[in-house]
Amino acid sequence: MAKTVPVGVSARHIHLTAEHVAILFGAGYELTEMKPLSQPGQYAANETVAVIGPKGTFQKVRILGPVRPATQLEISRTDAFSIGVKPPVRESGDIKGSAGVTIQGPAGEVTIEEGVIVAARHIHFHTSDAENWGIVDKQKLRVRVGGERGVIFENVVARVSPNFALDMHIDTDEANAAGVENGQQAEIID
Amino acid sequence: MAKTVPVGVSARHIHLTAEHVAILFGAGYELTEMKPLSQPGQYAANETVAVIGPKGTFQKVRILGPVRPATQLEISRTDAFSIGVKPPVRESGDIKGSAGVTIQGPAGEVTIEEGVIVAARHIHFHTSDAENWGIVDKQKLRVRVGGERGVIFENVVARVSPNFALDMHIDTDEANAAGVENGQQAEIID
Repeated sequence: MAKTVPVGVSARHIHLTAEHVAILFGAGYELTEMKPLSQPGQYAANETVAVIGPKGTFQKVRILGPVRPATQLEISRTDAFSIGVKPPVRESGDIKGSAGVTIQGPAGEVTIEEGVIVAARHIHFHTSDAENWGIVDKQKLRVRVGGERGVIFENVVARVSPNFALDMHIDTDEANAAGVENGQQAEIID
Repeated sequence: MAKTVPVGVSARHIHLTAEHVAILFGAGYELTEMKPLSQPGQYAANETVAVIGPKGTFQKVRILGPVRPATQLEISRTDAFSIGVKPPVRESGDIKGSAGVTIQGPAGEVTIEEGVIVAARHIHFHTSDAENWGIVDKQKLRVRVGGERGVIFENVVARVSPNFALDMHIDTDEANAAGVENGQQAEIID
């Protein structure tokens, strides 16, 4: 049985701590939900921030909520060249020694020394999907996207949790290289 | 024996007709060479043009010389979204019905109705390399680039000529998706 997963394309976005929300938007400010994301409880906020690197600025970077224990900016390698930062390819949450950037909101600004990463391509599996397919957390998979720009992605990280919904996350460079649209199906090869 | 080829990353660039050089830079103007490219006789020119789409502009797009029979702008899919055009994925020279754009030079401007493409990934083979490896012109190959963002590219077009030097050309989206640097080696799988 083919192991097919829907592909979700992640544009550049940022996760903020409650402390940074307070600095950027004012004490007591709470993020407001624009739309829910594929992972339960996660949402795109109405709020955006500016992100300033040594060579350029992105004016409206979408905030994803809810707030997290660490601020994390996820950008593509194309984005990274564009604003002059050198983020490593990392799994979400693994930000030690990653790149820094300045973040600007309507009420203030924050400079982070680390937290800028290029997200490692990954698949969210609900525990039941992973069990059905014999896939374990942290496993590295090969996943094929067909079409005229067909690509097999190696080193796709499996992330398994009862809180996850089945979804493969790649960034805009990966989506554009493979000619993928949001919601297209990919196939786990091994 | 492994079939390895060096990877050359193509940033956005433009090829111009002699007629368009005259309009953009003035009658009688000749492009001047900044540096030679991997393919014999081809060069990056000192001259650049602005490229204007419905949603944005690229100010300094490098001209590659010498002049050609048709003007052709090659951009990444990321670039295409950025300036609001919808180029198809095509082999160089196959521009019928492709996207249009406005091109601005110091002496004038030109609007082309077609000529904007996303270049199909391809490998230039000298005839002797192709014969050694049993590869024929127009063959579709699968090519692997290793590393933490390892990728296998499908539908890589073989282009064989006694005027070519061995080189695989991918665009910046493909290079960034695979974490490839210029000059890195890729391997033809089949």
